Amino acid sequence: MSDEIRARAEGARAAALQLSNASEEERNAALGAIAQGLEANAGAILEANRRDLEAAEVLLTEGRLTGALVGRLKVDDVKLRNEIVRGVHSVRDQADPIGRTLAATEMDRGLKVYKVSVPIGVLGIVFESRPDALVQIATLCLKSGNAVLLKGGSEAFHTNRALANILIASTRGLPGIPDGWMHLMEAREEVQAMLDLHHLIDLIIPRGGNELVQHIMRNTRIPVMGHADGICHVYVHAAADVEKAKRICLDAKIQNPSGCNAAETLLVDRDIAGEFLPEMVGRYRRNGVEVRGDGSTRSLAGGEAAAASEEDWATEYLDMVISIKVVNGVHEAVEHINRYSSNHTDAIVTEDRAAASRFLREVDSASTLHNASTRFADGFRYGLGAEVGISTNRLHSRGPVGLEGLVIYKYIIEGNGQIAGDYLGEDAKAFTHRPLAETWTPQS
Amino acid sequence: MSDEIRARAEGARAAALQLSNASEEERNAALGAIAQGLEANAGAILEANRRDLEAAEVLLTEGRLTGALVGRLKVDDVKLRNEIVRGVHSVRDQADPIGRTLAATEMDRGLKVYKVSVPIGVLGIVFESRPDALVQIATLCLKSGNAVLLKGGSEAFHTNRALANILIASTRGLPGIPDGWMHLMEAREEVQAMLDLHHLIDLIIPRGGNELVQHIMRNTRIPVMGHADGICHVYVHAAADVEKAKRICLDAKIQNPSGCNAAETLLVDRDIAGEFLPEMVGRYRRNGVEVRGDGSTRSLAGGEAAAASEEDWATEYLDMVISIKVVNGVHEAVEHINRYSSNHTDAIVTEDRAAASRFLREVDSASTLHNASTRFADGFRYGLGAEVGISTNRLHSRGPVGLEGLVIYKYIIEGNGQIAGDYLGEDAKAFTHRPLAETWTPQS
Repeated sequence: MSDEIRARAEGARAAALQLSNASEEERNAALGAIAQGLEANAGAILEANRRDLEAAEVLLTEGRLTGALVGRLKVDDVKLRNEIVRGVHSVRDQADPIGRTLAATEMDRGLKVYKVSVPIGVLGIVFESRPDALVQIATLCLKSGNAVLLKGGSEAFHTNRALANILIASTRGLPGIPDGWMHLMEAREEVQAMLDLHHLIDLIIPRGGNELVQHIMRNTRIPVMGHADGICHVYVHAAADVEKAKRICLDAKIQNPSGCNAAETLLVDRDIAGEFLPEMVGRYRRNGVEVRGDGSTRSLAGGEAAAASEEDWATEYLDMVISIKVVNGVHEAVEHINRYSSNHTDAIVTEDRAAASRFLREVDSASTLHNASTRFADGFRYGLGAEVGISTNRLHSRGPVGLEGLVIYKYIIEGNGQIAGDYLGEDAKAFTHRPLAETWTPQS
Repeated sequence: MSDEIRARAEGARAAALQLSNASEEERNAALGAIAQGLEANAGAILEANRRDLEAAEVLLTEGRLTGALVGRLKVDDVKLRNEIVRGVHSVRDQADPIGRTLAATEMDRGLKVYKVSVPIGVLGIVFESRPDALVQIATLCLKSGNAVLLKGGSEAFHTNRALANILIASTRGLPGIPDGWMHLMEAREEVQAMLDLHHLIDLIIPRGGNELVQHIMRNTRIPVMGHADGICHVYVHAAADVEKAKRICLDAKIQNPSGCNAAETLLVDRDIAGEFLPEMVGRYRRNGVEVRGDGSTRSLAGGEAAAASEEDWATEYLDMVISIKVVNGVHEAVEHINRYSSNHTDAIVTEDRAAASRFLREVDSASTLHNASTRFADGFRYGLGAEVGISTNRLHSRGPVGLEGLVIYKYIIEGNGQIAGDYLGEDAKAFTHRPLAETWTPQS
């Protein structure tokens, strides 16, 4: 198994070198061919998906899968055309992330250095359940010139295989597109083998639950981009507009409680708690949210809140549960968040701009928001185009990651015979270090 | 030991949170205080250095240190004032790398997202021999708002301790500068303990030889920025200007053979080898460079080249030795380099712009150069200001790394009560995603 994965990773590495030199037109043409291939083979995709759904129904009956998961597994004609194929077109239509001149400097007359964006190389991506993720991820990789090893959830085995075969067949032999730019892994042991190949794979992106992400982070030396937890907070400051606060606190919790950017803990300033909390707790309860509060919250909530334990502050419920704590001002709120949050997304509600500014700076999270729901923390909503994932890393990419998270850069230097010795010692030439507006473009 | 390092790393983490909010003026004032502290305590520094030099002389006599290393260890009054103190001023005078608005987008009317540069957090930096590196690294960290755990070479034990004490004392109690922003480690076991603290330390930067870097890369889950090898190439293309080629090939090898960007292998097109190689080999020999060549090189070099083995192509000599291979065109040169190079720095010499363009794109290295010596691959020379190091990573920073390699970003969102639910379902509001020219500035 591990020999086979090594061979595939070596193939992907060789493919990545070629793909990094494919032109924008070549990569876009390949994306167009994929969209056509998916439409032309709709029957095969739906048939494969029917087989996965049949198996899932059995597991559902046995209680080994949830209804929500079976729902995410389903691909029908509408989803295929309106979401999956349109998604491929939208990736194709994004601006090219590679070949961009990010900076240019004249080092000396006739000696110029350009910082040019290039693909990272070979990515390993592991995702759960939704088979449309396979198409989205593979096309983002193709657009950005990266080769990819993909592993989907076992529930979507047949759908993933059908989709992968179509992507590979649709792009085979196209100008600039090497064989082996994409590999589908189908066994869990293949993922384990891949995690050992730090000389061949540049980045792992796990898209799935906490357990999957934690397992991967603990078992590889390859950099991992992603987030395990999303323990997000809304802090209602003393100077909050109470109506805004109520709308934001409700939306952040219930608009999609299983989203990683849903709020798990509410912090409320003591000065506004009496006015705000009784009604907010009631609103949560009417919307089916279980409330767990500290002592102050419970005494204000009139028996509608259970007792929160220390563990609650560190828990991502991903469910219709919220913990609430009363705090004494911005400092205590920031301290609580920097201690318990997962550095993902945290919001303040206030009309006091200085308090907001302090919170936005001092909370050490990938996204900090003022008077807006935590649910906005998303690549599409931020205007990044299709989202690769959300990262709580502190290197390379942080927060919602778009295509630009799949690229790095190289330095390209154009001279006319300069040597370093000319810039040293007596009669040394001096560097000019003048910023240039020009871009580097390949010649042919 | 590991408990103590954990406590220090926790202290550094707390300090980093505070330091990230220090203003540019506060950080620059601290850098000014460090420069003054170094000048005021010159006597103590030179005295500490004298003790290190005495110990080093003993090791030199015993053959346990090289003369070059002892030379790098020495700090005298001129070096202190002209290099170390001036270096602090130059770091202070660089543009602030944090608090920059890297992008701004209107998501909808009254809802804006800003991408703002912030420090990474806590850095662990391990360096060898040159004690001035301590001051350079610590001041780069302070400038960029990062806390740092530093470990220097044991040969510089007393000098490092004196310098660290001065840096800590000079900044103690200054506005915005927390205690514990900098910690000096003095034992090798402390480094080992630090490498285990992946929840507290965000990035390790090893500055030293291959062995140190490899050891660190193999023994931590913390991201490591740096390079182990610098196996750099110069490729003399058939259409090269022979005079340029000779100057570049000599400079790339001998200008500083122990530099990581020095050339280790020369590739020469068969069409130009007869004209170029005999004279180039002679020039190398006259300059004291040992030449190891493939069969074609040796038959052209008239007995002046030893036989190169397979191992030579994969060796970083860091010495007055070069390996030479004759190749058949750009494709073979690129293949050889992508197989054997360390993805650090590689150059082509040619007057054919199309061939150059192909080489610059297809060689998968952090720096690729056309008609210029590999020795230019350096942060100062590229105009990046002080250099943090050179990275062969493919994430975050690649190639020479300046201050911008010590920062990441966060997303700051300013709204006026928006919730995600308003942008979904029937009557959904639409995102405008309009780029903004404005910057985010804190309010107080």
